[in-house]
Amino acid sequence: MRITAAFCPIFAALTLTALARADEGMWLYSNPPRAQIEAQYGFALTDAWLDHLSKASVRFNSGGSGSFVSADGLAITNHHVGADALQKMSSEKVNYLRDGFYARTAAEEIKCLDLELNVLQSIEDVTARVNAAVPAGATGDAAAQARRKITAEIEKESREKTGLRSDVVTLYQGGQYHLYRSKRYTDIRLVFAPEEQIAFYGGDPDNFEYPRYDLDICLFRVYENDQPVHPKDYLKWSPVGAQDGELVFVSGHPGRTSRLLTVAELEYLRDVNLPYILELLKRREVLLNAWSQRSGENARRARDVFLMLQNSRKVYDGELAALQDPVIMSGKATAEAAFKQQLTGRSDSADALAAYAKIAAAQQVIKQKALRYRLLEGGQAFVGDLFGMARTLLRAGDERPKPNGERLKEFADAKRESLELELFSDKPIYPDYEILQLGDALTFLTEKLGSFDPTVQKILAGKAPRARAAELVNGTQVRDVAFRQKLYAGGAVVVTAAKDPLIELARVIDPEARELRKVLEAQDEIKQQAQAAIARARFALEGTSKYPDATFTLRLSYGLVKGYEEDGKFIPAITTLDGLYARSASQGNQPPFDLPPRWLAKKAGLDPHTPFNFVSTCDIIGGNSGSPTVNRAGEFVGIIFDGNIQSLSADYYYEDVQSRALSVHSAAIIEALRKVYDAPALAEELLNGKR
Amino acid sequence: MRITAAFCPIFAALTLTALARADEGMWLYSNPPRAQIEAQYGFALTDAWLDHLSKASVRFNSGGSGSFVSADGLAITNHHVGADALQKMSSEKVNYLRDGFYARTAAEEIKCLDLELNVLQSIEDVTARVNAAVPAGATGDAAAQARRKITAEIEKESREKTGLRSDVVTLYQGGQYHLYRSKRYTDIRLVFAPEEQIAFYGGDPDNFEYPRYDLDICLFRVYENDQPVHPKDYLKWSPVGAQDGELVFVSGHPGRTSRLLTVAELEYLRDVNLPYILELLKRREVLLNAWSQRSGENARRARDVFLMLQNSRKVYDGELAALQDPVIMSGKATAEAAFKQQLTGRSDSADALAAYAKIAAAQQVIKQKALRYRLLEGGQAFVGDLFGMARTLLRAGDERPKPNGERLKEFADAKRESLELELFSDKPIYPDYEILQLGDALTFLTEKLGSFDPTVQKILAGKAPRARAAELVNGTQVRDVAFRQKLYAGGAVVVTAAKDPLIELARVIDPEARELRKVLEAQDEIKQQAQAAIARARFALEGTSKYPDATFTLRLSYGLVKGYEEDGKFIPAITTLDGLYARSASQGNQPPFDLPPRWLAKKAGLDPHTPFNFVSTCDIIGGNSGSPTVNRAGEFVGIIFDGNIQSLSADYYYEDVQSRALSVHSAAIIEALRKVYDAPALAEELLNGKR
Repeated sequence: MRITAAFCPIFAALTLTALARADEGMWLYSNPPRAQIEAQYGFALTDAWLDHLSKASVRFNSGGSGSFVSADGLAITNHHVGADALQKMSSEKVNYLRDGFYARTAAEEIKCLDLELNVLQSIEDVTARVNAAVPAGATGDAAAQARRKITAEIEKESREKTGLRSDVVTLYQGGQYHLYRSKRYTDIRLVFAPEEQIAFYGGDPDNFEYPRYDLDICLFRVYENDQPVHPKDYLKWSPVGAQDGELVFVSGHPGRTSRLLTVAELEYLRDVNLPYILELLKRREVLLNAWSQRSGENARRARDVFLMLQNSRKVYDGELAALQDPVIMSGKATAEAAFKQQLTGRSDSADALAAYAKIAAAQQVIKQKALRYRLLEGGQAFVGDLFGMARTLLRAGDERPKPNGERLKEFADAKRESLELELFSDKPIYPDYEILQLGDALTFLTEKLGSFDPTVQKILAGKAPRARAAELVNGTQVRDVAFRQKLYAGGAVVVTAAKDPLIELARVIDPEARELRKVLEAQDEIKQQAQAAIARARFALEGTSKYPDATFTLRLSYGLVKGYEEDGKFIPAITTLDGLYARSASQGNQPPFDLPPRWLAKKAGLDPHTPFNFVSTCDIIGGNSGSPTVNRAGEFVGIIFDGNIQSLSADYYYEDVQSRALSVHSAAIIEALRKVYDAPALAEELLNGKR
Repeated sequence: MRITAAFCPIFAALTLTALARADEGMWLYSNPPRAQIEAQYGFALTDAWLDHLSKASVRFNSGGSGSFVSADGLAITNHHVGADALQKMSSEKVNYLRDGFYARTAAEEIKCLDLELNVLQSIEDVTARVNAAVPAGATGDAAAQARRKITAEIEKESREKTGLRSDVVTLYQGGQYHLYRSKRYTDIRLVFAPEEQIAFYGGDPDNFEYPRYDLDICLFRVYENDQPVHPKDYLKWSPVGAQDGELVFVSGHPGRTSRLLTVAELEYLRDVNLPYILELLKRREVLLNAWSQRSGENARRARDVFLMLQNSRKVYDGELAALQDPVIMSGKATAEAAFKQQLTGRSDSADALAAYAKIAAAQQVIKQKALRYRLLEGGQAFVGDLFGMARTLLRAGDERPKPNGERLKEFADAKRESLELELFSDKPIYPDYEILQLGDALTFLTEKLGSFDPTVQKILAGKAPRARAAELVNGTQVRDVAFRQKLYAGGAVVVTAAKDPLIELARVIDPEARELRKVLEAQDEIKQQAQAAIARARFALEGTSKYPDATFTLRLSYGLVKGYEEDGKFIPAITTLDGLYARSASQGNQPPFDLPPRWLAKKAGLDPHTPFNFVSTCDIIGGNSGSPTVNRAGEFVGIIFDGNIQSLSADYYYEDVQSRALSVHSAAIIEALRKVYDAPALAEELLNGKR
């Protein structure tokens, strides 16, 4: 099994000997690695180059990245990033997620139901202002409240002043706070998607594997006032695309890394958090797989969630394997001990040294509360679309009358538009599918907290979990958008008057859920303050030459297009179209290795040597999906869509021996649009940068 | 989802109002329900009738039932019971499990690698002798040892006297001990199996559903001294088969029911045991499903285990749902309270009343120890074929020199032949598959006991779980039958000298594993004594008119061929061949609802009205798979292969409103053999009872 190679001690040892590697880092645009790149590759990052690339980069709030690739508002991302939108616009009659789509005319473009895109406009360091608002010596809940208050203030003030979406982002686990201002787009229309069969060729077995042959792309056009936008900054398309050995850059939104976590935090992830998440993912994968097999329509309804579950399961299996590798954990422990050693005796490091104990203590409290928190506040006891809406309606009624700074943060004024976009989305909701998921979640809740738990008994109301789920889903009106709008507009009184069973369920658990959240947020505050002390000490020792952990904010990575060795075999950096057909043949063309009819029919017309996918040493993680890969000239040479199996440890550390980032090659996209999808106009728009 | 119907309160309430239902019971042949059947159906069970049916019944030690259906040693069971044998005789080149098999001549019949069949010859009540051997007042470990000693003595003495396989069986959870003597057959040859596609038509989605269309059969011929056996008792085949509304009987080996468990025991199952088992089953289902998708050969290697995992998952999901239904559990509590009420004040019932507290106390100890026991002694931390063999070799060296009565029971003289048959089986073992399973099991172990657990650290020896698994599997010689024979023959000295890494791993954990087993067996003894007291009280009140819980010993059930209502719709008792084709068409002939090519080609020649599957109210459970369904004349009218989804609560109670036993109809078997499989000779042998 190739997966074990990633975790053999020799390999891990190699990776841990040198912690700061050549191409490491998910860098802030406000603090780019100019010196490193200059020194390593003799390439100078200019302000103009950086500004252009950052403004051409797009964040998909459904959880991925993308970029503008035409002056007429064309934005490209991955098929698996667009999947959420494709699923929501599909129905019993048409399945865009499975079958793909191409709008030959503007009129044929389909508007997404609730997709929001953000384009970063500016970054401002507000660390001093945020920390100043937290009373000296305040900790836990009090400090958390103060920090939430100032954050809401800063965001609202900025939103009102600039009209831009404004988010205060926590960096270095609390070492810095930056205000990110983004332009917000919500009229996004589908232009092109290939069949899932080729976008996700090889399915779960090939996911996170290499060599690969995936056309994992999806094209949208961004509108404003019912007209396509004309971005000043969009990426010039490179028809030649990425070359083996060349320097490339990735501009995108890595979601989360844990590289600066203390050993105590990593042990919690290893021993408590990841095993719990994996248990939940695997049980849900089994549930949806079994249900999907019952009919094609079931399979369609569950498809996007099912793919997400399989993908996450593979990710977390890899992450847990990394943390269960004693060599990796001892490497982390050694590094932490060495850093503490450096601090010892330094007058300015007392706080930092004390911080480790504070984090460990907070971790103990989290360990005690995490399960109930995840189930009741995290909503894992109430899986499905309906409960989340029911609770948002309940809490909106309670929170919105409060002063902006005192609300739960998702109800802050600066977040209102995004919250309403999601709450009033007319996405399809299927009662049978909701009952399936809620029934299983209530069963899981009962298993975890026990049948005698008073909260469980309140939730089940004397029913069996599945029967209770059916009663709730069949009884609620939350499915109806007009009903949601009425209750949201009417406020608490109208919400209470509705006596909706699902909202009333949310009410029953709300006191405990809020209390759990308060306790967990207080621990997070304690950890943030402690991490801030560690960060200050690190800055004092090393300056801010280190990049912060990923936070789904725009970052710049760099590296080489470069193959690697695995099990003594060299794996070339770039695959070609003929490799796709060979792979399919070697698997007897059986699913998930079969090819779409169109790809079989058009085979003869394709140039078999066209580059298809390629790997680079760029430092990426989940959230980077859809990020443009650009060359020194800032041209689009490919699009990130995956990492290889060895890169699953990237959450905890970077290595460039075997870990690689996977991209779809820009040349393959043009070849496919022209010769497989008969979409020459779209190919021309990409090549010319306009229609 | 149909599954929820089974657990709606109204339905559950119905089932609990009348606890002793008309056709309830898995009856001992030594205590058949003559009176009930006479009263209910006016049919008298004669000794001859019973003796013939019992001796024509066959137990498949791979975990199912079957029957002799020809004077030339032909035995029929389910395809899913034969699956273990079919898997073991398959290879990269030929896949009998998937593709089926037919031996047109005796020469073409294929000998199974390690299949053992048992045919019951006699039953003897040894309760008095067993209890007399346990010193008065002895409890826990001391009593357990004494009971193990007398059991081994009785079995050995009987084995030597009769030459028959002799098993002392615990009934009524300890209320009685019976000695079962069986003829043992180990030269079993495959005669016929259909494609899995039709044997398990509808796959996991249709498993435990009705209406159904499965040809779930497999035919073997039993040999002795290289000649087919000629059993005096075999079942006459009924060409017309089961008729709607008629009285039928099922003779087979139900594996386990829990109907006499106390509420404390049921709560343990609900809150601890079933959630744990389901977590393990679902994680393994995901593991094997993902691995199977990587290649056709992977899928073949994992197939029989994968099917077992899916089936068990569906069973336990249903059982847990039943126990999580407050109506069902309160019904159990009410019944227990009522029984205690009856006992109160009776001079002979003090022990019985005290027993409930003893069981609850033992259950607490079990709860504390169960996890480590299951992982270390139960072997769930070491999944795969190799570890079990390694441990058997280690323990055989230690146990066999001991006096018969003092050994772990699987090493008792009376069990030797069966143990050696399994240990020396030349079944295929695949290192990559072993590494996959062991690696995941060691990961699971680490999750459950934690990375800091000393036992876990001893087991992993400083490696990551998957790396450790690879090291162990690649380093052991246990895979080699000759090596196993050498160590088994050589005893402890030779085993130690071998320094086999997997055997040494078994040695490292053996002290703790044995200790855990001792503790658990002591609790079982305490519970057996307590249950015995409850049973005595029950006998005193009700006589032995109640059947004991299932124990994989031969039982007789009875009931009517009868349809039922579901969601307000009547479901007829019998399906016909045309329904199969309609079902496939309604699902667009997509897997798992597609038909084998042969069934498509032969469709025109088939009588569409041929009965295919049917349901009856007979009381069955897992282990009954392959049991013959016979009519009043004792003729073979069908073969049990499943229960419907509502019957999944049968582990805890019987109901006949919706719960049904599913059989393949005898007429469908003849029609298929003649017209689909061109096997007229085999059809004739069944109809004529000889070749």
